[in-house]
Amino acid sequence: MTDENIQVRLAARPEGLPKDSDWEIRREPVPKAEEGQFVAEVLYVSLDPAMRGWMNATRSYMPPVEIGAVMRAGGIARITESNLTGFAVGDHVYGMIGVQQFMVSDGQDMQKVNPKLAPLPTFLSVLGMTGLTAYFGILDVGSIKAGETIVVSGAAGAVGSVVGQIARNHDCRVVGIAGGKKKCGYLVDELGFDAAIDYKSEDLQKALREHCPKGIDVFFDNVGGDTLNTVLPMLRMHARVVICGAISQYNNKGPMTGPSNYMSLLVSRARMEGFLVFDYLKQFPQAVEAMGGWLAEGKLKSKEQIEDGIENFPQVFLKLFEGSNFGKLILRNTDAF
Amino acid sequence: MTDENIQVRLAARPEGLPKDSDWEIRREPVPKAEEGQFVAEVLYVSLDPAMRGWMNATRSYMPPVEIGAVMRAGGIARITESNLTGFAVGDHVYGMIGVQQFMVSDGQDMQKVNPKLAPLPTFLSVLGMTGLTAYFGILDVGSIKAGETIVVSGAAGAVGSVVGQIARNHDCRVVGIAGGKKKCGYLVDELGFDAAIDYKSEDLQKALREHCPKGIDVFFDNVGGDTLNTVLPMLRMHARVVICGAISQYNNKGPMTGPSNYMSLLVSRARMEGFLVFDYLKQFPQAVEAMGGWLAEGKLKSKEQIEDGIENFPQVFLKLFEGSNFGKLILRNTDAF
Repeated sequence: MTDENIQVRLAARPEGLPKDSDWEIRREPVPKAEEGQFVAEVLYVSLDPAMRGWMNATRSYMPPVEIGAVMRAGGIARITESNLTGFAVGDHVYGMIGVQQFMVSDGQDMQKVNPKLAPLPTFLSVLGMTGLTAYFGILDVGSIKAGETIVVSGAAGAVGSVVGQIARNHDCRVVGIAGGKKKCGYLVDELGFDAAIDYKSEDLQKALREHCPKGIDVFFDNVGGDTLNTVLPMLRMHARVVICGAISQYNNKGPMTGPSNYMSLLVSRARMEGFLVFDYLKQFPQAVEAMGGWLAEGKLKSKEQIEDGIENFPQVFLKLFEGSNFGKLILRNTDAF
Repeated sequence: MTDENIQVRLAARPEGLPKDSDWEIRREPVPKAEEGQFVAEVLYVSLDPAMRGWMNATRSYMPPVEIGAVMRAGGIARITESNLTGFAVGDHVYGMIGVQQFMVSDGQDMQKVNPKLAPLPTFLSVLGMTGLTAYFGILDVGSIKAGETIVVSGAAGAVGSVVGQIARNHDCRVVGIAGGKKKCGYLVDELGFDAAIDYKSEDLQKALREHCPKGIDVFFDNVGGDTLNTVLPMLRMHARVVICGAISQYNNKGPMTGPSNYMSLLVSRARMEGFLVFDYLKQFPQAVEAMGGWLAEGKLKSKEQIEDGIENFPQVFLKLFEGSNFGKLILRNTDAF
């Protein structure tokens, strides 16, 4: 345990892809717990595409991260000092811990996790917000039924890979869109997708026609842009488009590209719907139980890519947008191990 | 009654706004009814923005009108000769009569209308597909509830004006978007809208903020383009966007403009949904009864703009896209009166 607290703070609002100069790496003293607080050492930080949105000044479902503030991030930490009832030294907590080595908290919106139930990174992937996003998105918003054809973009990503596995567990035909032969092979061979399309080397429209001969009942979109636009005219009657993300558009310097084929929603009497996992808070326990069951039965696989060093956040974060990560991207506070 | 049959046929697929040269005006002999057919003289032709879509080669919810074919249109005709049981000379029929003076039919998809129930043009406006589109769109797809804020674009148009009145009859706050002070005055003074925004002279975003202080629960869109894009970030939680049309985009030479703000659907956990009135066929009778009741009570007003002469179709049709019509645009076969 060190006596300094490396923090990654937002130095400037990025235009396009975040640059090193948009961040400030600060070395602060480890904070002290006052009455009603605890201090915890961060172990794992969850890196998610949505974080890019939090860096913009635009009003969204969460307030923007202020310039000069520690970058907001979910993660897992272990309590090192506590003056707060119910939170003991050694307890593991999950919540918005920030991109830093030590956090101080009054316990609000922090949940305790039991490290005996699963490896800690799993609480950030399949059993965490990522997995829950997939679960509620495909089951509630997507309302999948056995026999339907499901297409998921960003299929080898943290959310997409879980979406596809849940749909497969519900006897749907599952087609993934991902970048590169390695990811596509993994989806079919390891995760049991019916087909995977490498958007980097294949003609997406042609490949979708081939793999979805009846059309598409549910499209779970993490990517936006051309991908969304190509899918829209292939929707079946009463199809559902689940809007989870638009990673292809997050670093645009101008406005996003809207789907010019959106009138396909009329032709197919289809709907496009957005959601946020936080709205399902009350149903988290059932979802975690279901996901845990599949994990135990081998019907759900979790893949994480764990990178080292809080101070490496600015570079590691970019992997999400390069598509060079494979599985849930997690940053480990190496000094804590 | 003349002995010639003026027909308007599609001569070429238009690029952008249809030109005179995209049409051929033909004078054919009046057809004869063979066994199992009737001949009817067209009285009123319904002119609708959706017809522009039928002129494109693209697959849609209906096959394209073939080059050389009589332009497809709904309307009302009166039978002049019949060799078909159940259809007598003098009966009035509603269906796809085409832009022509006389039609021949085997009775399929033609419905008889009773001219004693309402003036004939009403069967093309409030009591016809136009009114039914408004009815099912706002009540079923939009699922409006008392107290909600409803915004409708193309609000002085045939569908929009009915949408607003139905929403008002359901105790919603109704804000219309239309072009010009005259149309806006009509919406508020005659149809009881809570507010109307003149998109030609007002800043739409500013005006929407003023008239929808709580945000927008349901947006019924006939217009698309910038209008749709401006509305999206103003949606309330769990809002519904009803996609009925995109008249601003039908004459684009390139692709439509997609709504770059579509990720607002995620921020607001909102949905955007398309529909077609034909899907509600079984519920037409109840809807017509409800609409007829409102008409009788003075809670629903119908406005038609009736233009003369089948041969004038090419020029009259353009009024829809210029926004120079006011109310349901109908073409009368003057020779039949």
